[in-house]
Amino acid sequence: MRPLVAVDWGTTFLRVARLDAAGSAREERELPRGILSVEPGGFAAVFQEACGDWMQAPGALALICGMAGSRQGWMEAPYAACPAGLSDVANQLTWVEPDRIAIVPGLMCTGPVAPDVMRGEETQTFGALQLLEREDAVVVLPGTHSKWVRARRGRVESFATFMTGEFFSLLRRHSILARTLDEDDGELDDGALRRGVDAAMTSGNLLHAAFSARTLALVGQLTPQAGSSYLSGLLIGEELRSRHLDPAKPALVLTGSPALVRRYGVALAHLGIAFEALGQESAWQGLAAIARCLQERT
Amino acid sequence: MRPLVAVDWGTTFLRVARLDAAGSAREERELPRGILSVEPGGFAAVFQEACGDWMQAPGALALICGMAGSRQGWMEAPYAACPAGLSDVANQLTWVEPDRIAIVPGLMCTGPVAPDVMRGEETQTFGALQLLEREDAVVVLPGTHSKWVRARRGRVESFATFMTGEFFSLLRRHSILARTLDEDDGELDDGALRRGVDAAMTSGNLLHAAFSARTLALVGQLTPQAGSSYLSGLLIGEELRSRHLDPAKPALVLTGSPALVRRYGVALAHLGIAFEALGQESAWQGLAAIARCLQERT
Repeated sequence: MRPLVAVDWGTTFLRVARLDAAGSAREERELPRGILSVEPGGFAAVFQEACGDWMQAPGALALICGMAGSRQGWMEAPYAACPAGLSDVANQLTWVEPDRIAIVPGLMCTGPVAPDVMRGEETQTFGALQLLEREDAVVVLPGTHSKWVRARRGRVESFATFMTGEFFSLLRRHSILARTLDEDDGELDDGALRRGVDAAMTSGNLLHAAFSARTLALVGQLTPQAGSSYLSGLLIGEELRSRHLDPAKPALVLTGSPALVRRYGVALAHLGIAFEALGQESAWQGLAAIARCLQERT
Repeated sequence: MRPLVAVDWGTTFLRVARLDAAGSAREERELPRGILSVEPGGFAAVFQEACGDWMQAPGALALICGMAGSRQGWMEAPYAACPAGLSDVANQLTWVEPDRIAIVPGLMCTGPVAPDVMRGEETQTFGALQLLEREDAVVVLPGTHSKWVRARRGRVESFATFMTGEFFSLLRRHSILARTLDEDDGELDDGALRRGVDAAMTSGNLLHAAFSARTLALVGQLTPQAGSSYLSGLLIGEELRSRHLDPAKPALVLTGSPALVRRYGVALAHLGIAFEALGQESAWQGLAAIARCLQERT
């Protein structure tokens, strides 16, 4: 197999890894050079800085997933349509340099109200399925824009986006709720997070439930230290509320940053929903699987 | 009856009126001196500037409703407990100057998740009931924090707050959705607002539905001009969604600024829900009714 340089290029961070044949990272680097920090025309130089040394290996191949394929990224990679499997994605790569540097397409699906889109989470989903040796799963990818992905027979059938992380950050920093919260997030307060989850479930409406973070603080039933964990629980709970989770169904697959997996894990456990947790290695596994697809074709 | 100076002192604006015996405004003034713009200790001077001339009339009485009674206001006026009617409120005034300047208490009620509070809307509710000569109603007061108030036999039984206006403003200005919207709001687009209401109703989850404002724009199904009206409809729709509105019930009472009454009116009409619309005169009528209560007591 050709030396594989795996790149997960998001909005805020650029993560790169040199992978072995099994898709495990031999070496990893993380740079604060997400696409929002890169000037138009500056992507090649940032890529060179991040992993130019690794690309000198004979036959090296770089596969990039994430927002680098968006209109504001390195090169726009058109979305592939759902349902889509590994081979669909491998067939629709956008080549920045022929046979050397490619961007994985994001996916688009139809939803009840509007189309939905993602970039990067399709690769994490494929990687998660590889890691767990499963073909069917509901994969949850918490983040600024959380994704709930339904995979069947190894293909992404459909998915839905929840702006959970962005709402949390807006409310935490810029709303009236910020006034009764400590400036600093401090340690996660599991009890306050679970209380927030319960409030979201009981209320059934975020516009109303969010105000409870203020009134509970006003009457002294929520401390400034616990407020941020409560608010986080409210938002995660609102995301989970509409998912109609059933403890009798197979375990969810949860993959993302350790901090977010921890939070969602507390909320899911509180609701009695089983899950298997994976870390950020899913992206590397997914890119390795796409590389194997490419190799099998040639 | 004593000359009555009515004051609606909110977060952003200070509105004052000189009322006649029937509670109608003879003269009105609006100043951009909401409580957030007033330094601690500066309230008396701002009050003097706004209506000091009117207060020189012999026997003049000033009644103040709104955020001026909050911890950050002129003087903290403890909340009255629900259910509460006009006489309960009149009995619990906080006097800034004995028998001359008083602040109307806000109300507190218990909710399924947390207590709820309001300041000012109780007075508007009492005023709306007076204007319509009704004792029972559901009164909707749209705003930064919209209130849904249930009145029975002339008393406020319970109410619920929705952070609709604040969420709109956060998403409109500070979220990723802002990127695909025109800088300027422009004219309200009724069709786009109705489409947003439908999206909220269909989706049932704001964290998910909000993302449609982005994806519809990405695929060219929502113009930058219509985006703000669509987002407004999404948020109003999310507020209405959980209210279990029934076209068979008596008409809602809608009271607030003309711009917001217009928006909520479009949404309610679209859903086939009857309503009666009132303007900002409700606050004056409510303060006049509290003044009559005071007079009857003496």
